[in-house]
Amino acid sequence: MEVDIQFVPFPPNLHLLSGRVVVVIDVLRATSVMVHAMSEGALEIIPVTTIEEALKMAKGLPWNSIVLGGERGSKKIPEFDLGNSPREYVAERVKGKKLILTTTNGTKAFHLVSLGKDILVGSFFNIGAIAKRCLELDRNLLIFPSGDEGNFSLEDTICGGMLIELITKKRRKPIALTDASQCAQILYKKFEENLLEAFYLSHHGKELINRGFEEDLAYCAQVDTTDIVPVFRDGVIRTDRMQRADGRRQKAKR
Amino acid sequence: MEVDIQFVPFPPNLHLLSGRVVVVIDVLRATSVMVHAMSEGALEIIPVTTIEEALKMAKGLPWNSIVLGGERGSKKIPEFDLGNSPREYVAERVKGKKLILTTTNGTKAFHLVSLGKDILVGSFFNIGAIAKRCLELDRNLLIFPSGDEGNFSLEDTICGGMLIELITKKRRKPIALTDASQCAQILYKKFEENLLEAFYLSHHGKELINRGFEEDLAYCAQVDTTDIVPVFRDGVIRTDRMQRADGRRQKAKR
Repeated sequence: MEVDIQFVPFPPNLHLLSGRVVVVIDVLRATSVMVHAMSEGALEIIPVTTIEEALKMAKGLPWNSIVLGGERGSKKIPEFDLGNSPREYVAERVKGKKLILTTTNGTKAFHLVSLGKDILVGSFFNIGAIAKRCLELDRNLLIFPSGDEGNFSLEDTICGGMLIELITKKRRKPIALTDASQCAQILYKKFEENLLEAFYLSHHGKELINRGFEEDLAYCAQVDTTDIVPVFRDGVIRTDRMQRADGRRQKAKR
Repeated sequence: MEVDIQFVPFPPNLHLLSGRVVVVIDVLRATSVMVHAMSEGALEIIPVTTIEEALKMAKGLPWNSIVLGGERGSKKIPEFDLGNSPREYVAERVKGKKLILTTTNGTKAFHLVSLGKDILVGSFFNIGAIAKRCLELDRNLLIFPSGDEGNFSLEDTICGGMLIELITKKRRKPIALTDASQCAQILYKKFEENLLEAFYLSHHGKELINRGFEEDLAYCAQVDTTDIVPVFRDGVIRTDRMQRADGRRQKAKR
């Protein structure tokens, strides 16, 4: 099992994706929103890259079945229902709903890695469950931090490093770590006792504070609040539990 | 003064290069070779990307004025004079000579950043002198690790992290560190007391050991053996001392 992490969110080489488990991470805040929304009962999430795409998709669906969410410049998009703070995505707003989401970094990342075999949605909220799933799948792994407008992101890499630490601690067979994976693991160990400190040091953390979202930093630094594992497949994010049920239904139909 | 480091050796954005000091690093082993050769009296170094280009260039020059050096797969190129081990580049072989060099990662990196304002050649051998020069130039800095066949390189990033550490320690005015710079600095601090350990952990370090170049690891981990600062300009690397003399001669001619 090789564990790699790609530090900069450009399209990965196909050989890096093919057959791999991919974990997309955008701690501040897109994948934190996704995990939170699914844990609060959202039916599915459709990550789209543009506002226009989100609005067009929403038009074709019954208004009470969907929630439009996302940000530009960290702020809620005027016509949208919700912004990009996980604290907004509570059961009262999202339970049973289809969520259409567009953000600056996170939602784009899914389309960059869409050729991966299993594409999981990771954040500190579900990092233990993600590690468990990666160990069960037992295949080569590519961790994909969404980055900060195309640049390296401290907080995403630390979250990736925590995933590497959990996997290397729990796996009995040897794991091949790339130079980048070793670096991410070292970075995580540095902030292990105080993840929030890293959020305050990071460029995007500072930006969120300046834009009035300081509370989101502590909120997104919570570890293992849920064991949900959202999976991106064919353009849609669903929880694995639901996808397994779907699989069973499809088998039953045949 | 902003200090950034680009973790993966793709062509940088022009706005990242424009007006910046760029420090290219390929500790194992191209920039170590360059710094070593210059400190042993090589006249100038021409980094070229292909073997054919090197041979063609050599043909047009008096045979006793040049040295052909470089590697493919870490090994000396058959028709060449020297390989890619800094230990080979001693005064007896290189003093007063023009060195034509082609390597897998390092020589290519110079062409990727050729639009930078001042392009310096960094390694552990001259890291103190490089830090001093960056402080004198006092402009935004881009550290450019040459990477490991397109991937993140542990040893180059640690060398970049040491440069960041030296600069932040010595500069009195504040320095803006990007997320990547903070990460490199943390990585350096982890291995500060034992740089060689990092070389043994790195992918390329292991590769060099397998190919019979283990001695080069300890050799390239030597810190501050010279205060030479090679500069890449118009396709040629010269020591700054010589370039300053050139500048004076050109002024005198006018």
